[in-house]
Amino acid sequence: MDDRELLKVVMGIVGKDKCLDDCAEIPCGEQVMVVTTDMLHRTTDFVPGMTDWQAGWMSAAVTLSDIASMGAAPTYLLIAVGLDDWKCLAGVMQGAKDCCTKYGAEIVGGDIDRHNELTVVTTGLGLVSRRDIVRRSGVWPGDLVCVTGVPGQAQAWLEGYRQFEKALFEPQPRVVEGQLLGRAGVSAMMDDSDGIALSLYDMMSVNDCGFSIDTAKLPLPAGIAAAQASELALYGGGDYELIFTIPPERYPVNGVSSTVIGKVIPEKTVLVDGVPLEKRGYQHRWE
Amino acid sequence: MDDRELLKVVMGIVGKDKCLDDCAEIPCGEQVMVVTTDMLHRTTDFVPGMTDWQAGWMSAAVTLSDIASMGAAPTYLLIAVGLDDWKCLAGVMQGAKDCCTKYGAEIVGGDIDRHNELTVVTTGLGLVSRRDIVRRSGVWPGDLVCVTGVPGQAQAWLEGYRQFEKALFEPQPRVVEGQLLGRAGVSAMMDDSDGIALSLYDMMSVNDCGFSIDTAKLPLPAGIAAAQASELALYGGGDYELIFTIPPERYPVNGVSSTVIGKVIPEKTVLVDGVPLEKRGYQHRWE
Repeated sequence: MDDRELLKVVMGIVGKDKCLDDCAEIPCGEQVMVVTTDMLHRTTDFVPGMTDWQAGWMSAAVTLSDIASMGAAPTYLLIAVGLDDWKCLAGVMQGAKDCCTKYGAEIVGGDIDRHNELTVVTTGLGLVSRRDIVRRSGVWPGDLVCVTGVPGQAQAWLEGYRQFEKALFEPQPRVVEGQLLGRAGVSAMMDDSDGIALSLYDMMSVNDCGFSIDTAKLPLPAGIAAAQASELALYGGGDYELIFTIPPERYPVNGVSSTVIGKVIPEKTVLVDGVPLEKRGYQHRWE
Repeated sequence: MDDRELLKVVMGIVGKDKCLDDCAEIPCGEQVMVVTTDMLHRTTDFVPGMTDWQAGWMSAAVTLSDIASMGAAPTYLLIAVGLDDWKCLAGVMQGAKDCCTKYGAEIVGGDIDRHNELTVVTTGLGLVSRRDIVRRSGVWPGDLVCVTGVPGQAQAWLEGYRQFEKALFEPQPRVVEGQLLGRAGVSAMMDDSDGIALSLYDMMSVNDCGFSIDTAKLPLPAGIAAAQASELALYGGGDYELIFTIPPERYPVNGVSSTVIGKVIPEKTVLVDGVPLEKRGYQHRWE
């Protein structure tokens, strides 16, 4: 059992429409409030060597990334912290606060709990105009498929390339880029936190078309042989880049550093170099 | 180290004003959006014998109670579930959904994580008009101190009185009452989830006056000797009743079953039957 299978259980109970995007949408005056929640904890997410400050930073960053992927500006964060050791709290809170401050959000509430391992759940709220909001659906054949930054670096650290520590330990959510892309009229967007491959399959599941990407176009982590670097970029987790589709005439978008990695095709399939892409990446699993 | 001491660490980082009420407040058009988050998990909160459905119900209820205590109507819930056993998920989600449905809220988002024990973090959003919002501050000498329902029943179950199982396993947040009390102009309110004693001390910490309550006036769990029943009501955790203060001329409030247990006094102290009340109740502790 993996989390995409479990999501179907949730869909059956709360409704499929509640499970399709990186954030939920709530009307808020003339704007849309987007809301999202993420659970991280020591054994799965905070790898050995990370400081408390980095655990807090990462916890805020993953949630701000979900908000960015809707084209929204993050405004508020709530943080629930389960602690085995109370001495972690100050570092975690400071890291979360510094990440929020950098990206224009404010911590407005939270909860403290005793737990058997450090567990941090961040809930983020953001604002976006109805016109500029971006979802995973909206993809159109002929659109370009693009990605910000250089995917695969977080996974590269996990596989021994220690020069990529910052990418994994202190992810920089694409908050400015997300808003610029929303205003520029991208057709769909999400973050690639589970890897490019799973993200494309997630995106395909809510669209009536597919994707064809070229490994030769992928921006790759430096200093790693091309075959392994492609593997990291396609299937590695822990990145917080934005994957988006955009009509060719709107590309590039001022102020956003990104790379065209393929195009949208009418067939409902995901191809890499012309053959079906493996559907694997970062997933939780249960026996 | 307990959670009220740790809260001071948080106050030093995110600001004291962010830590004073049951919910944070966010402007939302002509209304105020109140937001709150709570972490519950197996070893601390889901006692042996509870079903998955009850764990989900309780998780939603504690958060809806925080929203009720601000006088707000709960509207949306997000739920992050950490699972050791994926088979728990459906029950937890159904319980949370049923609680939300009963009280007028909707589950709009969430997260699924693998964890070493069942851990549920619910984030609730509610709406209230600026005029009707109620906070912990606002208490005035001469106001009545009141409580809804019968406090102490959840703790009574924990101490062996099995007739109170529903009170602990399926708490009923005072959602209707909270809104009626807000509209009736109560001066301050919070829920009593950590017991009446700690709640009164929490309330005093943000007001320039104190409280004098009478054990003879406390509504008590039935079938328990008076001395133990008072102890349960004052210091027991796990209840989700509302404690509020109200000018005498506004009491009682139509539609709200409540009991006057004392009055607000000018001195900054909490008295029970004329002597200082012990400052103890439900708290998390760390070595």
